[in-house]
Amino acid sequence: MKIAAIGGGVIGGGWIARFLLNGHDVTVYDPHPEASRVLGEVVGNATRAYQRMLLAPLPEPGRLIWADSIAEAVEGAGFIQESVPERLDLKHRILAEIEAAAPADAVIGSSTSGFKPSELRQGAKHPDRILVAHPFNPVYLLPVVEIVGGAPDAPAVVKCCDLLRSVGMKPAVIAAEIDAHIGDRLLEAIWREALWLVKDGIATTEVIDDIIRYGFGLRWAQMGLFETYRIAGGEAGMRHFLAQFGPALKWPWTKLMDVPDLDDALIDMIAEQSDAQSGAHSIRELERIRDDNLIGILQALKANDWGAGQTLREMENRLYARAVPAPVGYPLVLHHALVRGDWVDYNGHMTEFRYLQVMGDATDALMIHVGLDEAYRGTGHSAYTVETHIRHLAETSAGAKLSVETRLLGHDAKRFRLHHSIRTDDGVEVATGEHMILHVDTVAGRAVPMPAPLLARFDALAAQETDAPPLHAGQGIRSIGKGA
Amino acid sequence: MKIAAIGGGVIGGGWIARFLLNGHDVTVYDPHPEASRVLGEVVGNATRAYQRMLLAPLPEPGRLIWADSIAEAVEGAGFIQESVPERLDLKHRILAEIEAAAPADAVIGSSTSGFKPSELRQGAKHPDRILVAHPFNPVYLLPVVEIVGGAPDAPAVVKCCDLLRSVGMKPAVIAAEIDAHIGDRLLEAIWREALWLVKDGIATTEVIDDIIRYGFGLRWAQMGLFETYRIAGGEAGMRHFLAQFGPALKWPWTKLMDVPDLDDALIDMIAEQSDAQSGAHSIRELERIRDDNLIGILQALKANDWGAGQTLREMENRLYARAVPAPVGYPLVLHHALVRGDWVDYNGHMTEFRYLQVMGDATDALMIHVGLDEAYRGTGHSAYTVETHIRHLAETSAGAKLSVETRLLGHDAKRFRLHHSIRTDDGVEVATGEHMILHVDTVAGRAVPMPAPLLARFDALAAQETDAPPLHAGQGIRSIGKGA
Repeated sequence: MKIAAIGGGVIGGGWIARFLLNGHDVTVYDPHPEASRVLGEVVGNATRAYQRMLLAPLPEPGRLIWADSIAEAVEGAGFIQESVPERLDLKHRILAEIEAAAPADAVIGSSTSGFKPSELRQGAKHPDRILVAHPFNPVYLLPVVEIVGGAPDAPAVVKCCDLLRSVGMKPAVIAAEIDAHIGDRLLEAIWREALWLVKDGIATTEVIDDIIRYGFGLRWAQMGLFETYRIAGGEAGMRHFLAQFGPALKWPWTKLMDVPDLDDALIDMIAEQSDAQSGAHSIRELERIRDDNLIGILQALKANDWGAGQTLREMENRLYARAVPAPVGYPLVLHHALVRGDWVDYNGHMTEFRYLQVMGDATDALMIHVGLDEAYRGTGHSAYTVETHIRHLAETSAGAKLSVETRLLGHDAKRFRLHHSIRTDDGVEVATGEHMILHVDTVAGRAVPMPAPLLARFDALAAQETDAPPLHAGQGIRSIGKGA
Repeated sequence: MKIAAIGGGVIGGGWIARFLLNGHDVTVYDPHPEASRVLGEVVGNATRAYQRMLLAPLPEPGRLIWADSIAEAVEGAGFIQESVPERLDLKHRILAEIEAAAPADAVIGSSTSGFKPSELRQGAKHPDRILVAHPFNPVYLLPVVEIVGGAPDAPAVVKCCDLLRSVGMKPAVIAAEIDAHIGDRLLEAIWREALWLVKDGIATTEVIDDIIRYGFGLRWAQMGLFETYRIAGGEAGMRHFLAQFGPALKWPWTKLMDVPDLDDALIDMIAEQSDAQSGAHSIRELERIRDDNLIGILQALKANDWGAGQTLREMENRLYARAVPAPVGYPLVLHHALVRGDWVDYNGHMTEFRYLQVMGDATDALMIHVGLDEAYRGTGHSAYTVETHIRHLAETSAGAKLSVETRLLGHDAKRFRLHHSIRTDDGVEVATGEHMILHVDTVAGRAVPMPAPLLARFDALAAQETDAPPLHAGQGIRSIGKGA
């Protein structure tokens, strides 16, 4: 499906980066004189972030194609994302141009943060296919997209949501349209309260941010508002929480509707406090810090199979499934890894134990290859490594693409002996590992013979192992000083 | 300093758990018939969380001492935390009882989420030492505490903040008192908006939570409100953001002051939606999921040295500094580790590569011990492992306490050969590692001789290595099949 983007600023650029890095070609129209520079910066940030975040192999990025007009950009497109400035007259003019040239079944998503679908659709030829698809910055990392303008089973909504899910996003279909949808209404409420707190001298911007990021912000990254309060209600649940919290709603705590004037004095106060709080970092640095934090949080949630971490896991699983399977010759090449930013030590090189992690993952891949997989483990058997010999031959750094060549040096009914060779994508051998692994009964906790079909798979592999063994196989560490 | 807690429910219990797990004795008064059960559950959750979260050695937990009266609890206390239900008459009565029995210089913190210090202090003998110290649930994991009732340099504020920092918290001193302080005002604003969204049928509780936790909640865990918007303003900064965002403040988006009636119909609607969203998990399960997510997020932020992760790092550093140094005999015992929950594989045992992580950390400890430390690395030298031989002898699981015995098997001017033995705290040897390590010039990228003082440290260690070497030293993996 051809994807077109009208507008390539920070938000449009985030969309474009997400599509490109998921392997889609994107045709872009943006007449802004700085469009190419701004988009290049966003795509650069996004590329760096994906290399650090994703364990799965990244696909070849799609092609970025600049169009000279909206008509050229949207011709033949199946999905078009509009991210132009937030003026309704401008959006109407752009949408009319899109509709004039786009296929009748193209779905048009608008990044609008404020306008309702009924407003965007005024004068449209095919109003139902114009949807609000409102993302959050940075679009290439934050999964959620607010979808407004149709029921979850409306054809345009289905097509839009399927596409967004395929690029690692989490569409949230909103039941009815209102100004500013949901996320920005919540943010607006808190923003008004925060402005009063600054204006009235209750706290500085830094203290307010600290109360959020050392406090309930940590809860919200994983559970949001209602689920957090459900826990607060204890075993008695949500109803109990509401009964406790209800009376407080009547208290005169807030000046929310009485909007503070954003006059020069308040703007100066906020700008100066913000400089004091964050001025030590440039915006470029803050973007990278933000992205690295998001990556760490998303990976942490992935480890717990929760929330935005589940979306990341699904994205990785799609990338693994889509990756071109390596031809399984011999030696076997069953595992690839990208050296992540947090795998690097103070010397700037991949740290020692990560080599064994890569070797262990390659051993897991070999085990799945021969049928020693999760289903087989369910029968009360597994394989335990008892001995490992690692040789470090060269250094490697963040971003390097590694692959592992695996040989079966020997086996009997209860054991197998593997040799892994880790190479970079330019062929340099950076480490080898030799591993003795036992086939065990996990209940009895001891080595037992493999069943015949499993043993037959090892026999078949052994038949392919015809070269001389590596010279270092079976060798120990040479002595300097005591010891054999 | 003696610490007393009046009230041991979910919030009081969170305080108590944090103090106990940081090694403080706590005297508790809570007349509730279920107090012991509730507190036991909170302390249980907190203990599990600390074992998973903290890499540093936990101190011996403090003693929990139940008192039969407020007077008994606070006698001789230096800090007293009050966490009784949110009724001003009750708080006045309890504070009067505390003041009657507590030392004149004791600081009294109140967990109140709503009352101002001026209200709490009505009728107090020593009003200045009564402070709002308002935490967020779960108190044992979330660092922030709102401190209201004095300037940052007021004696009671200094004493309170010092204590809270020493147990891994982040006090945020608020400049002026208002009802509900800051965090709950922000939460109240968003809560009102969210209630309207549910009541008006715009979205379910689940969709609202998803928009938070897959969207801006991920930003807020690290940067809060103002710093996030500073990035949104781009290089033009906060002033530009305010100029862009200002007009939106005037838009009629919100029904914030028009509080929805929490009538039966709305309560039913929210409770039913919450059941549909979260009912698959018990509250106990949700608490553990929440805690595991918080641990992962905090550790991820620690890896980036940012926000709440910095607070965790400082907490760990204090624990490391406070840990009783092991007597450095020979073999050296320089490194201890606790097996974390996320170090365990699908077999339920510590996963293979984490053994090498523990050995690598023990090698780092040895290097610091002999002076091959960060300062020395700054001179352009380091040590690179070139060969490793691991033997796995027994399994170990989450929560196990490991220590590493290290021997120097041999060395010359350019190399050293270490042997690590990892043992559990009941003496079982679970793995050994033999490691050949080169002393390198990191600029030239090759092995070079050590300077004389460093070599002398290795010579001195070698003189202590008088036992016969382990039988497996220098041995390779024995053949089954091809290879030497």
